[in-house]
Amino acid sequence: MPSMLRLDSSIDPVASVSRRLTQAFADAWAARGPQHTVVARDLVADPVPHLTHTAQHWPEHLRAEGAPDLAAQDAVRDAVIGQLLAADVLVVGAPMYNYSVPSQLKTWLDHVHVPGLLAPFGGETQPLRGRPAVIVSTRGAIYDDGSATAGWDHTVPPIELVLGTALGMDVRVVTVSRTLSQSIARLAGERERFDAELAAAEAELARLAAELG
Amino acid sequence: MPSMLRLDSSIDPVASVSRRLTQAFADAWAARGPQHTVVARDLVADPVPHLTHTAQHWPEHLRAEGAPDLAAQDAVRDAVIGQLLAADVLVVGAPMYNYSVPSQLKTWLDHVHVPGLLAPFGGETQPLRGRPAVIVSTRGAIYDDGSATAGWDHTVPPIELVLGTALGMDVRVVTVSRTLSQSIARLAGERERFDAELAAAEAELARLAAELG
Repeated sequence: MPSMLRLDSSIDPVASVSRRLTQAFADAWAARGPQHTVVARDLVADPVPHLTHTAQHWPEHLRAEGAPDLAAQDAVRDAVIGQLLAADVLVVGAPMYNYSVPSQLKTWLDHVHVPGLLAPFGGETQPLRGRPAVIVSTRGAIYDDGSATAGWDHTVPPIELVLGTALGMDVRVVTVSRTLSQSIARLAGERERFDAELAAAEAELARLAAELG
Repeated sequence: MPSMLRLDSSIDPVASVSRRLTQAFADAWAARGPQHTVVARDLVADPVPHLTHTAQHWPEHLRAEGAPDLAAQDAVRDAVIGQLLAADVLVVGAPMYNYSVPSQLKTWLDHVHVPGLLAPFGGETQPLRGRPAVIVSTRGAIYDDGSATAGWDHTVPPIELVLGTALGMDVRVVTVSRTLSQSIARLAGERERFDAELAAAEAELARLAAELG
C-alpha cells in the first residue's frame, strides 16, 4: 500500500496556504485509489520535543562515552524516524517564519538528521536515498530572484540540506510567495500574482501527487 | 546600571563552545565593575514556548478581527521583550544545529520579531535601534569562504535579519567553526585551526565586552 506522510507546521488556523496545499496533495494522492493511504502529523498540535542533549544527534553506537541514558528521547526519535521510513512520499508544509524554519518543524528536522542512521557517517548509510520529499514552501512577502530580499529565505535551504544532501531524498520544492497579500493592505497590489502562484502550485502538486511514490 | 542579557541555546552540557564564549563575555563585562550586571537566560533549561497562532506575530492593535484571546501568550511575549528592552547589550550563544537555528533559540526570535512593537510597520518603530547585539556563532565543521560548504550556514543570517535589519540593533558576529574537531576523529586535523579560532573569538569578545554598552 503506497503511503504518504503529510507534515504541517503552519500556525495559521484560518488562511494557511501551506496547509491548503498539503491538503491538495493528499487529496490528489488519495484519489489514485484506496491503496494510497495518508498519514498526517500536525507538528503544531502534536509537536516533536526540542533536542536537549547533543548525544541525541547520534545513534547509540556513535555516542561518546559517558553519554547519559536517553532511552525516552530515543523512543521519540525512533517513532519520528519510523513514520518517515514507512512513507513512500513525504510532503512537508514549510511556511517561512521570521526568515527561518518554524520551530515546530525544526524539532522534527533535528530528530531525523542522525548521521550513521539516516545519513552517511564514514559509510553509505542512506536508507531514504531517492525517496521523494515535496517541500511546500510559503512565504509572506516577495523574495523573487533579483529583488532586494532575494536570499532572505533561510527556511528551504536547511530543509534541502537535511532531507536532500544528508538523507539523499529526492527533494522537490513548490513555492508560493506573497501570502500576506491576503491580509496586509500594503501588499494588496500583489494579490493577483499571489493567486497565480497559488494556482500554479496547486497544479504542480496535483501532477506530483499523480506521479510520485 | 549597565546590564547585559546573556542567552544560551546550546544543548551540549559538557563541551559547549558557545556557552564558554558567552561566559567569557559575561566575565569580561562583569569585570568592568559592580555596576555592570548580567541577566542570563538559558533557553534550553527555561525554553520560550512555540508560537501557536499567527496573531502572535502582531501586537494587539494590528491583529485581524476575530483573533482569539491571546492574553497568556502575550504575557510570555511581554516578559521576553521586557528582558530584551532592559538590556544595554545582548549576547546570544547561537550554535548551528542541522544548518539552522536551534529550535529553542528560534522560539525566542519568534517572540521578539513583532512588527509595530519592536520592528517598523508603516512607521519608524525601532526602540532597540543601535543597541549592541553580539552573536556568538559556533559551527561543527568547515564553512569557510570558498569551501564546498560555504553558504550552508542558515543560522546567523536569520538572526541578523531579525535583530539587525528588523529591530535595528548593532549586530556583531563572532564565529568559531570546527568545534567537532574536539570530538570527531576525522576532523582531528582541524583541531589546531579550531584552537586558533577559539582564541581569536575570546580576544574579540573580551574587547567587545570592554567597549560596548
